[in-house]
This record gives sequence, C-alpha cells and structure tokens, in this order.
Amino acid sequence: MDATPVWFMRQAGRYMAEYRALRARHSLLEICRAPELATEVTLQPIRRIEVDAAILFSDLLLPLEPMGLAFDFVKGEGPQIDRPVASPADVERLRTFEPREALSHVLEAIVLVQRELSGRVPLIGFGGAPFTLASYAIEGGHSSTFARTKALMYGHPDAWHSLCEKLATSVADYLVAQIDAGVDAVQVFDSWVGALSPADYREFAMPHTRRLFEAIGRRVPTIHFGTGTAALLEDLREAGGDVIGVDWRIPLDVAWQRIGADRAVQGNLDPTVLLGPSHRMFSQTDDILARAGGRPGHIFNLGHGILPSTPVEHVQMLAQYVHSASRRAR
Amino acid sequence: MDATPVWFMRQAGRYMAEYRALRARHSLLEICRAPELATEVTLQPIRRIEVDAAILFSDLLLPLEPMGLAFDFVKGEGPQIDRPVASPADVERLRTFEPREALSHVLEAIVLVQRELSGRVPLIGFGGAPFTLASYAIEGGHSSTFARTKALMYGHPDAWHSLCEKLATSVADYLVAQIDAGVDAVQVFDSWVGALSPADYREFAMPHTRRLFEAIGRRVPTIHFGTGTAALLEDLREAGGDVIGVDWRIPLDVAWQRIGADRAVQGNLDPTVLLGPSHRMFSQTDDILARAGGRPGHIFNLGHGILPSTPVEHVQMLAQYVHSASRRAR
Repeated sequence: MDATPVWFMRQAGRYMAEYRALRARHSLLEICRAPELATEVTLQPIRRIEVDAAILFSDLLLPLEPMGLAFDFVKGEGPQIDRPVASPADVERLRTFEPREALSHVLEAIVLVQRELSGRVPLIGFGGAPFTLASYAIEGGHSSTFARTKALMYGHPDAWHSLCEKLATSVADYLVAQIDAGVDAVQVFDSWVGALSPADYREFAMPHTRRLFEAIGRRVPTIHFGTGTAALLEDLREAGGDVIGVDWRIPLDVAWQRIGADRAVQGNLDPTVLLGPSHRMFSQTDDILARAGGRPGHIFNLGHGILPSTPVEHVQMLAQYVHSASRRAR
Repeated sequence: MDATPVWFMRQAGRYMAEYRALRARHSLLEICRAPELATEVTLQPIRRIEVDAAILFSDLLLPLEPMGLAFDFVKGEGPQIDRPVASPADVERLRTFEPREALSHVLEAIVLVQRELSGRVPLIGFGGAPFTLASYAIEGGHSSTFARTKALMYGHPDAWHSLCEKLATSVADYLVAQIDAGVDAVQVFDSWVGALSPADYREFAMPHTRRLFEAIGRRVPTIHFGTGTAALLEDLREAGGDVIGVDWRIPLDVAWQRIGADRAVQGNLDPTVLLGPSHRMFSQTDDILARAGGRPGHIFNLGHGILPSTPVEHVQMLAQYVHSASRRAR
C-alpha cells in the first residue's frame, strides 16, 4: 500500500443521512440484532467514504445480555442496564454463554458483510475490554466518575476479578467466533480505561485484558484502543494488541515512541476537528502524518468516534486527504 | 512544617451531614450568595478534619452571571446556563464587571471566614481558567465531548479568543479582589483542560491562562489545577502557577519530574479510593508520599473533588494519616 490506510471509529452512524433514515424506523438494538440491517449500516460508509476498512456495526454491550444483564438504549442518555451489578452475589449470578447461539445474528451479519464486500476492504470485528464492560455493568450506563465501579473494585477485589474473568472469557469466545465467521481484524475497545491510575490499571485491568488477547490468539491482527491513556501506553502495549490506538491528548510521535517501534499505532485526530473549518482539519492531518513520518504501521483514525453533528462532506474529504497527502509524502 | 500539608478539593460538600442539613434549607446558589452561609460551609470541614487549609465555599461559575450569562443548578444535572454562548455575536454581548460590586458577597465571606479562622489555617480562594469557564459558557453545562466548545474554537477563533480574553480579565479582577479581601492563596481550576490536545492547548488556552496568572501577580501563592493533564504538564507549568495540581492518572514522581523541581506539586490520590476499604487508602497514600520523597513542595490532595458518597470518617482518617505518615518519614 502506497498511502496511509484510514478508517474511522463510528464511521457508520448518526452523521450520515442514510443511517438516520434507517434509525427513524428501527431502534439501535433492532439494527444490531437483524443481520440484514447491521450489514446495510456497516456498508453505508463504504459506499460514500474512501475508507480502507469496514467495521462491523454492532454494540459493545451485546455480550452483557446473554450474561444476564438486560439493557436498552434510552433516547439522549445512551445505554441503561436494568439491574446493574451491585454486589459480589450479582457477579456470581452472571453466566458465560455460547456466542454461536446467543449472538449468532452478529456472526450472520459478518458473513453477509463479507459477501457484499467481496474483498474490497477488510472487515474489522470488535469487543469490549473487561474494564470498560465491567464499568457499564456496574454503573448501568455512562459515568463521569466511575465511582461505583471503583468502589466495587477496591471494596470487593475478588468479585471484581471474577467479573472481569467472566467478561474476558465471554468476549474472547465472542471474538474468536467473529474471527471464525470471517472478520479480518478485531479491535478491543477499552474506551474508559483512562479513568484508572497506572497502578490500578496494572492491578485490576491489565491481567484480564492480557488474558483476552492471549485467548484471541494471533490468527488476525488485533487493535487495542482506549482514550485518556497518555500515562498508560506502555501498559496497554504490554497487555496486548498488534496496533495500539491513541487519542488526541498526546502527540502521535510521543505516543509511538512510548509504545515502541515494533507495534503499529492507530490515530489520532480529535473528532471535534471535523466540526470546524476544513483547512484546520487538513493542517492537523498534516501534523499527524508528519509525526508518523511515513513509517509503515500507522493507521489513520480519529482519537474516538465520529460525532453525530459532523458534516459528512468533512469525513469524505478527510479520508481522501489522508490518502493523497500520505501518497505525496512517500 | 514537619509534616506534608493536606487539604481536599470539595472538602466542604455533600459527603458531610452538616452540609446536607444546610442544603436541605438552602440552594447551592443561596449559600454562595449569603456570606454567613458560605462562611459556615467553608468552616465545616475545618472543625472535623485535620486539614491545613480552608478553601472558600463558592462556585466556579459565579463570574458568568455578571458577564451576562444567567444560570442555575438543576438537581442531579449540575449547572445549566439559560442561554449559552452560541455565536460570535453572543461573545460580543458579554460584559466585564467590577467584582467588588457584582460579587461583593464573596469578598464579604472571605473577611468573615478569616475572622473566624484567625490564622489557624490559611484560606484559599479560587477562580476558573478561561478554557474551563468558556466550555461551561458554550456547552451550557457539563459535557463529555466539548463538541460545541471546540466547534466555536476552531470555527470562530477570533470570537473564541475574545471570549477567553473577557474571561481572563474578569477572573483576574475577581482573584485580585479575593486577594485584597484577604485570601492567603488562590487556585485556578482548569478542570476540563485535559480535553485538549497539547497543540490546541498551546494555541487556544495557554495564552489566556498565562495572562490570568500574570494579572494575579505574585502577592500570594498560586495553584494551577487540571485533570487528564498527563500530556500537558509542561505546558501548564509554562502557563503559570507556583504549584501544579496533578490528578491520579499519572504517578506523582513522573509528573513532578516533568513539571520541574522548581515548582511545588499538589495531589494526587484518586478520590474514589476513599470509597473503598481504609487499608487501600493508606497504602495508596504511602505510595504517593514515597513518590514525593519527603521533599518540601508537596501538598497532599486528591486528584479531583471529594465524591458525595464518601464516608466522612475516611476523609478524617486520611488527613490524620498524611500527617502522621509523612512526619514519621522525616
């Protein structure tokens, strides 16, 4: 490949009119659970945006339901779990599950997407890292302080580790099933891991994430993503992943040096830059490409998902620009 | 002083029964606006907790109202600004003000608190940094993405800089008035600055924060605090502050090395640790004190404010422990 590859987290989503049209008729969970709809949404950005990968349209929380944690999406508030984990007894009640049965619709969507893509671009599957999934399971939704999560973590470390073991096992089975179904790479989202101190990360999160990566194995490339990780990068690397995702809070070259040249990096444009004028989007992209120095092993992406208010033209222009600018530089 | 000094952000607050009792009868803004009530709340932790400083009970957003941005606190949702800044014209309409008139009740509270304290412990005043205040002015409240803030910043940089200049001027006048009224130190809260990339910080926030610190002058010690700043510490130092506040996301010794030995540091226990068992609170405190190495210039604090669900006994024990453990080590 002579240009820097590019894809975007949440490249299928509310910023696209065709996605909003579908969401007017179907809930988020309906789309996730209907292989044809999930396939359609996964392919929407591929038709309009010059991205080098598709990412399966799905939701991080899907594995929680077959574990015993029912949830729904509340308009404007994100996910809401009916009865969040509040005690060691709640952890004990959680089941592991067979993803080929409980989440067979996701695996069917993978087969459908791959048939439609027929090799044009690779398909990325994904799952949540134990810490981030545990935080949803305990908080019941988004949190700004992770107070309940950490209270359980510090107060009932055995229950915490048991919860994370169950999550790591479930997500590993789920990702292996996704690989068997045909995804070309997988991304592990530890989106909220930046809430942890480095010492807490090493004690409470890293062993489980590492076990997850070990269980996934080396059949496809793996991406390990988090936000707010400026002081955790060495630890994320150690936990696993062929590619480490980096948000915008640290310059890419500084991050890559800390991660090590033997790993690839993915990132790291602030998604809000796409809300502003295009000249700033291009100049910040230039800066990121310069910091990557044209080295192979840089995958261009945002530091987090595309925001709903993003103009679709900016996403289109950005993907093209990454290709043309990086090609010129080589 | 033979022990490490300690105080806590939000040491006056909902975790204390006597504060909750007062809040049952008065709103947050009523307390802020009545010098006697603000004095009472400021003194509540001084009576029960072995802290080495009082911090004026007030709210970061108070200067916004005399600038033309009315707001209130909505139960469970935090501050809500009636008509947030949405355009360059909205920025133009903002006024600067004379804090000795518009916020005279804060200055009266300072005089009352100092009379009550009569030198027992110093009193810290505070104000918001331009970026953090601008983000409230634009978002209208808390935000997880700062999408509106950054859209205005990137899309209307002149309006952004004008907004931050007005904020820096207003907050500087306000902090100088607090110093005149008798506070012994001031803390500048740039709580949400960690949302910015280092390059954006230097372009959009740092010049205004620096001007703020220059305008405050050197009459009392200044503390410069933010969260999520692991990749911004050198820049925060450059912007100003005799003491740099550090959250728990980076080890204190790593942070201090980056900040430089010629500055003091404040931090950096994760406030959620106080929700867990006390043995963990003590061991994490030991770790922070060890990383500070008994050097003068470390002020023990949390990495952010005390959480409402914190047991008051933990706060009491923690303050005592910081004193006894650091004294033993010297």
